[in-house]
Amino acid sequence: MTSALLTDRYELTMIDAAIGSGHHDLQCLFEVFARRLPDGRRYGIVAGTGRLLDLIAQFRFEDAELSWLRENRVVSDPTLDWLANYRFSGSISGYSEGEVYFPNSPILTVEGGFAESVILETLILSVLNYDSAVASAASRMVSAADGRPLAEMGSRRANESAAVAAARAAFIGGFNATSNLEAGRSWGIPTMGTAAHAFTLLHSSEEEAFRAQVAAMGTGTTLLVDTYDVEAAVDLAVKVAGTGLGAVRIDSGDLPVLVREVRDQLDRLGATKTKITVTNDLNEYTIAALRAAPVDSYGVGTSVVTGSGFPAANMVYKLVARRDSADQWVAVAKKSTAKATVGGEKTPARSLERGVATAETIYLGDPSGAAEEGRQLRVSLMVGGVADERFLGAAGTALARATRERAISEMPVDALRLSNGEPAIPTVYRS
Amino acid sequence: MTSALLTDRYELTMIDAAIGSGHHDLQCLFEVFARRLPDGRRYGIVAGTGRLLDLIAQFRFEDAELSWLRENRVVSDPTLDWLANYRFSGSISGYSEGEVYFPNSPILTVEGGFAESVILETLILSVLNYDSAVASAASRMVSAADGRPLAEMGSRRANESAAVAAARAAFIGGFNATSNLEAGRSWGIPTMGTAAHAFTLLHSSEEEAFRAQVAAMGTGTTLLVDTYDVEAAVDLAVKVAGTGLGAVRIDSGDLPVLVREVRDQLDRLGATKTKITVTNDLNEYTIAALRAAPVDSYGVGTSVVTGSGFPAANMVYKLVARRDSADQWVAVAKKSTAKATVGGEKTPARSLERGVATAETIYLGDPSGAAEEGRQLRVSLMVGGVADERFLGAAGTALARATRERAISEMPVDALRLSNGEPAIPTVYRS
Repeated sequence: MTSALLTDRYELTMIDAAIGSGHHDLQCLFEVFARRLPDGRRYGIVAGTGRLLDLIAQFRFEDAELSWLRENRVVSDPTLDWLANYRFSGSISGYSEGEVYFPNSPILTVEGGFAESVILETLILSVLNYDSAVASAASRMVSAADGRPLAEMGSRRANESAAVAAARAAFIGGFNATSNLEAGRSWGIPTMGTAAHAFTLLHSSEEEAFRAQVAAMGTGTTLLVDTYDVEAAVDLAVKVAGTGLGAVRIDSGDLPVLVREVRDQLDRLGATKTKITVTNDLNEYTIAALRAAPVDSYGVGTSVVTGSGFPAANMVYKLVARRDSADQWVAVAKKSTAKATVGGEKTPARSLERGVATAETIYLGDPSGAAEEGRQLRVSLMVGGVADERFLGAAGTALARATRERAISEMPVDALRLSNGEPAIPTVYRS
Repeated sequence: MTSALLTDRYELTMIDAAIGSGHHDLQCLFEVFARRLPDGRRYGIVAGTGRLLDLIAQFRFEDAELSWLRENRVVSDPTLDWLANYRFSGSISGYSEGEVYFPNSPILTVEGGFAESVILETLILSVLNYDSAVASAASRMVSAADGRPLAEMGSRRANESAAVAAARAAFIGGFNATSNLEAGRSWGIPTMGTAAHAFTLLHSSEEEAFRAQVAAMGTGTTLLVDTYDVEAAVDLAVKVAGTGLGAVRIDSGDLPVLVREVRDQLDRLGATKTKITVTNDLNEYTIAALRAAPVDSYGVGTSVVTGSGFPAANMVYKLVARRDSADQWVAVAKKSTAKATVGGEKTPARSLERGVATAETIYLGDPSGAAEEGRQLRVSLMVGGVADERFLGAAGTALARATRERAISEMPVDALRLSNGEPAIPTVYRS
């Protein structure tokens, strides 16, 4: 399936009208930004860029799509001809995937003809809004876990395709693995998982189930110990697998207490190297509450794939400048009260003092000041419709994960607090 | 792409171990249910079933998937052979798509061999959890709109593939149209949309933009009137399109006040038939707050595609029975405190008094009582791996929308209140 119809109808009707008025090829700058962070969040993580660049490259109208548009009279014949020849020929620059962002950070800038650029609005926002929501939530959980590894296992709580994107975004946000096999194949993310309660219930006894699992996966496997009685299951697990048992998983109960009891029990049984992984409806707050408990790793489902309360970032895609009749850029902006926009091209830099971020500084107009201000945030992502290969595929995903780690290391300590607050640094305009 | 890798790794490792222990073909019953509704919700709407039946039919491991699993040593060779021959051969029954559900309603029952059934867990839950979350939220908005039409336009706030599913689920929940073109093509949902602020900003004046749009789409179009000044734009819209202008769209501002002013202005200008559509971050509460305002239709984005605060239903997929060595069904159940399950096959009925629902009655064991109790809720969806055609495609989607409407009409009035409360009817077990 091409990505071309993953698009709001009004993008095509606007193009139809612009072709009619002769404005469709007018050079434009569109900008992606978020007016605000989700309530109380101190920063966001940009994610989706690598996936997006691929999807833009595949954005084509084939015969099947054109026939459907024709039959449904969505646009006129000249516009159908234009769509048949569509391929994006413009340029895209913006924040690196994995970069930290703040209110009004110019996350992505698309430069091209009006029609070829406006048509990408829905796709661009779909990808960036969901992936950034997940990566931003994941990043908070990573801080809360304080160095202990996290696995994403929320596929069942997200749309089946969104789940693959969520696994990728969580990995960029600092998670270490995913349960989702397609995310392993598509993006090179380590996959994990051993067994569910159904496997225990399938067998006539817990012991039979544990023996079957150890026979198939070896003693290094993770045994799920809360189908019936945790204490009895931990005894049984060590009896079956020996003290070399890899890990036990606990998916229910009062975790801070239970984890301590299971650790003590494992130690008494001599399974001092056996790890404990917990997976019971965790989020950044319950992860933080387990800091003092002897948990070795976390599995996180619903909360990470749904952005922990904020399943969509607030990013919008706005026309900020167009060429006038004298071929000069003219800044344009919407003026309606609550949703006003800042027109014109922007050059963003992360201002730093002794390596710590102090402001998101956005230069309007003349960008020369930005070059001397902290760290430059705008990189070229696509030129003439061709994506920079470095940002694609598994390598691009790994690069984005490293980018997030570096960007987070520059943040003031307050940025990593889980409590509600203001953005960690102010957004400042300079001109 | 096949749907086979949209799966958690542990489904495959369980199959690997079950093949090892000879339990993989043991006949099993798995059940989908939700232990609870989202906080304060009074009912849920089942959605996703029609999409799911198609995805199960496509669930195959091709060479590419098998190679990847082999290279990554996810499972052993005998299991790879088993996967290569996989196709689901069991039966699925459950609630009709569009049906109302409550805590512990047995929404779907999958009967088949352990391995062929457990492998579908992630896919089944991904589809049902997201689609039902959207349909449930949509249904509340439809009640709030009190007969006025709603359009789903949230594609940009959902993963690009999830957006298509969301449009379909919102339609099943009672919405009338979507902005998403792929949802129009795949599921026969009416599509809508005319222009964004970018179209106005592209032109050197609002008048030029309005003239271009009316030239392309006719006077029956919808003009967006809040790019600069609403009052001036409404005057201009009627000047350009005449009093036959189809509609104006307002996307910002204090809607209850603004809508009234615009209605009065349109009437004064003689555009008494011109409709007003509003699209500013609406949810069920803001829609309800506009009941007294002269709004003709609503466009809803973020809140509907993110389930209005609950982006995933709480459905789980649990083994509830298996055949024993004497080929009798044995109920099985997890016993861990907070997540205990009720084992055995269930036969659900909606108990009714004078056509109004009074209970969700679930018969355990002997189902003969259910046949005389209200309305039967379990229908056959798939037999021997073959889906019932009536539930697929655009026709199945339309049927689901009608099913929801009928099921809602049976609900007690309290069910439609937006305020937080208990499930509208109790779930009662009988045996």
